[in-house]
Amino acid sequence: MSKQVSAHGRRSGGREGRRSLRAKAVPSFPALTRNIPVYEIVPQEAIELIHEESLKILEEVGCEFRDSEAIDMWKKAGADVRETRVRIDRALLMELVRQIPSEFTQHARNPDRSVTIGGKNSVFVPMYGAPYVRDLDNQRRYGSLADLNNFHKLSYMSPTLHSSSSIICEPMEVPVPKRHLHIIHSALKYSDKPFMGIVTAKERAQDVMKMAGIVFGDDFVRDNTVVVSIANCNSPLVWDATMLDALKVYAAHNQPCILAPFALCGASTSASSVGAVAQVNAEALAGLAFTQLVRPGSPQLYGQFMVTVDMKSGAPMGGTPEAAQMMYLMGALARKYNLPWRTSGFHIGSKVNDAQAGYEANMLMHAAILSGAHYIWHAAGWLEAGLCAGYSKFVTDTEQLASWYKYGQGLSFADFKDAMQAVREVGPAGHFLGTQHTLEHFESAFFMPSLMDFNSFEQWSAEGAKDHDQRGREKASAMLTQYEEPKLDEAIDEALRDFIARRERELPNSVN
Amino acid sequence: MSKQVSAHGRRSGGREGRRSLRAKAVPSFPALTRNIPVYEIVPQEAIELIHEESLKILEEVGCEFRDSEAIDMWKKAGADVRETRVRIDRALLMELVRQIPSEFTQHARNPDRSVTIGGKNSVFVPMYGAPYVRDLDNQRRYGSLADLNNFHKLSYMSPTLHSSSSIICEPMEVPVPKRHLHIIHSALKYSDKPFMGIVTAKERAQDVMKMAGIVFGDDFVRDNTVVVSIANCNSPLVWDATMLDALKVYAAHNQPCILAPFALCGASTSASSVGAVAQVNAEALAGLAFTQLVRPGSPQLYGQFMVTVDMKSGAPMGGTPEAAQMMYLMGALARKYNLPWRTSGFHIGSKVNDAQAGYEANMLMHAAILSGAHYIWHAAGWLEAGLCAGYSKFVTDTEQLASWYKYGQGLSFADFKDAMQAVREVGPAGHFLGTQHTLEHFESAFFMPSLMDFNSFEQWSAEGAKDHDQRGREKASAMLTQYEEPKLDEAIDEALRDFIARRERELPNSVN
Repeated sequence: MSKQVSAHGRRSGGREGRRSLRAKAVPSFPALTRNIPVYEIVPQEAIELIHEESLKILEEVGCEFRDSEAIDMWKKAGADVRETRVRIDRALLMELVRQIPSEFTQHARNPDRSVTIGGKNSVFVPMYGAPYVRDLDNQRRYGSLADLNNFHKLSYMSPTLHSSSSIICEPMEVPVPKRHLHIIHSALKYSDKPFMGIVTAKERAQDVMKMAGIVFGDDFVRDNTVVVSIANCNSPLVWDATMLDALKVYAAHNQPCILAPFALCGASTSASSVGAVAQVNAEALAGLAFTQLVRPGSPQLYGQFMVTVDMKSGAPMGGTPEAAQMMYLMGALARKYNLPWRTSGFHIGSKVNDAQAGYEANMLMHAAILSGAHYIWHAAGWLEAGLCAGYSKFVTDTEQLASWYKYGQGLSFADFKDAMQAVREVGPAGHFLGTQHTLEHFESAFFMPSLMDFNSFEQWSAEGAKDHDQRGREKASAMLTQYEEPKLDEAIDEALRDFIARRERELPNSVN
Repeated sequence: MSKQVSAHGRRSGGREGRRSLRAKAVPSFPALTRNIPVYEIVPQEAIELIHEESLKILEEVGCEFRDSEAIDMWKKAGADVRETRVRIDRALLMELVRQIPSEFTQHARNPDRSVTIGGKNSVFVPMYGAPYVRDLDNQRRYGSLADLNNFHKLSYMSPTLHSSSSIICEPMEVPVPKRHLHIIHSALKYSDKPFMGIVTAKERAQDVMKMAGIVFGDDFVRDNTVVVSIANCNSPLVWDATMLDALKVYAAHNQPCILAPFALCGASTSASSVGAVAQVNAEALAGLAFTQLVRPGSPQLYGQFMVTVDMKSGAPMGGTPEAAQMMYLMGALARKYNLPWRTSGFHIGSKVNDAQAGYEANMLMHAAILSGAHYIWHAAGWLEAGLCAGYSKFVTDTEQLASWYKYGQGLSFADFKDAMQAVREVGPAGHFLGTQHTLEHFESAFFMPSLMDFNSFEQWSAEGAKDHDQRGREKASAMLTQYEEPKLDEAIDEALRDFIARRERELPNSVN
């Protein structure tokens, strides 16, 4: 890769390149700065009790770290290590966790899209990891690279999204060992927003960092966060070698991971919401502490993905009351530890973008916002417990995010006295539509969606009596025809392609 | 009407009748006792500021009371009255409002269904007032008496509903002047839960009280609450003669009304959420104060119905962020005044039971629960801004209410230590499904819906790939075939029919 073409170096070419990108950019909301209080569902003593039980689990039962390098690091740190079992006393654990910064900035290739994660900020990130798509014709089929490119285009065009994720859907036609190259290229090429990493093998994480280096500059990505990745604990209490490898690669570069146990509550945790949270908290803390052995002070995200299990089918359920309640507990724990944290927003079980999808989605997003989550993942596209990325669901969600954005900004008292003066002017039995106050404030006062339909039944019928799912497909289709690429510098793109071509030659076509 | 057949008298016949009713009853949840904190979206000082502005409006601008009897009552009470404009100083206003009890019991004809409204309790009440239905074949057409009977049957069969409302849909084939008789008879006959009154004319309110007297005993309904009714203020700041007539009839019998301005925010209020709340609060307080001139100490409900207006069509919108935010403010005001209060839960704009419906519905219900509302109306069936009652939406909502019920009950710490013991037993990489703790707690720990579908895509496809709307229609249809009537005492039903027949002869077929 050539240093001259990097977009984040200190060289003038890069700056100019960035300016020209900015000129073409579509609108994008900054991170939501929450101006409403968080909701504390239990008193602080209950949070302390959960914390205490989590610590006891790590001290008494410990956590598996199934990687010899990780085990050596834990031994060196003074943990109680027997084979792969690591018992961590509370002093060591909390000393490590305290080293994690409470917020960090994730840089985008377009600096206007960089976001600070933590504090009062919330960012919305589309879904990740679906093998299937529900397409523009409402057919469910395997995802392709063309679909993935489309989802990155939609991410770029959606003002409410603060990231383009990466594997929104899997490009199933690309061989697994090479897939990560094309996924990251798609995210970098078709959108200029922050993106997510790959964690399925050490070499793939390294390739992500090399590709990021091509775009941002190798020096830049050594210390500055440009990619957020996911590291799932295998509940209960196992950090496996694959995840630990990825953690090591990313932490070494100051690139945060989300230390998120993927908990199927009732199966991989006890059948207790509070018990599940205490366990997941222990798992997350153990993983977070480990990252600080790799690189002290490296940014990380506390996190959770907790769903309950359907007794009938064993499948994960989405928008349940327990999922919402557990989010509040995780948020309170994150605040106790002063950590930036991730939850999921619109992750649902429904197979289609129907009423179930909507009920599930907003059961969870309300809790995500009120629990003060910083990194709200799976905030667009998610269907079928994550197995499917829906085009209609994607644009449905991105409009709903505008509603949550408004909600999180809180109530404005700035024009309150003027509004009350308007009541005096209008008086009983009057109407407000023509008043000066209304003309000046209507648009900013109230959320006005376009995909949701509030027309009369007659008007709606005349327009084809389309349900929300159909309107969503049509909107996604229209957006894609209007898409204009936020061009990568040509030399950067060429360098990326060269890298991909080389790695394609080196890598096998299948996993042994 | 015969005193011997009343179900709520002190005579043994009544008691026996009640016992036999109870034996046949379908399951029903008691009122939700909320065990989670309310969410305060703004500091208390902001609530005091809104209160202050509301008082100033009532003192400076005043409120119209377009009824000569009401005007005389206000004069007698010492308000500043000029023609129909009543300016109420804060001392008088608050002295009257303070007389309203903070909670009351609404008696049902089956005493097991009686509910206390206020305090930590929330009750769920189906929608009201739709001229149209979306039927079991997904057709939108005028409502009929058969539809209304069906909705009362579904209300009876839905454990999460604490009332059968009354005019869930309008029986459009019944002439308007006689319609109320059949609506109330339907509610009383096909369900044994609490119900709602009629307010469209003084004589109709009187007929409701007479019919209630037949069922509960004239003596009983003179002082005991058996019916809750709605009295909408015409925003801005007008209480019209029709509503005041109904208020007078019901308050005289200790039957509460919901003093709820129907506010189209931005049209009948200023274009400010906070301004709208201050105005609606003034309107509600004026109406509430008036009820205490009729009967001091009579129970009443503080309330609101506040939706924003779609700029494109002028139509009311449903699940908007502002509607949720305003709910929190109204809840805080209700607590300040120590009043039981009503909000709406699943009131939406969507024409069909689709994704939009779901997103809208749960945007609002989350706020209804967290704002501590006592009487959560429009909690089943509502489509199309209230113009349409949907069968599928009705059963969708009643299942979702079970989720909110669980949510509102809060998190259980009772088995927390046992759950953590299970983690010790299972250890890393184990699974919890077979543990004693899981077997004992799974069912109570997690919400398990039946209408929502979490099966695999393959299973769901094999079952017909039905969306939630279709499953809802099928469930509603199945419920109606399983319905068993909670029989009214035959003599009571006969007395009701005699009353209706007499009133049918007396009343005209059309309104002049």
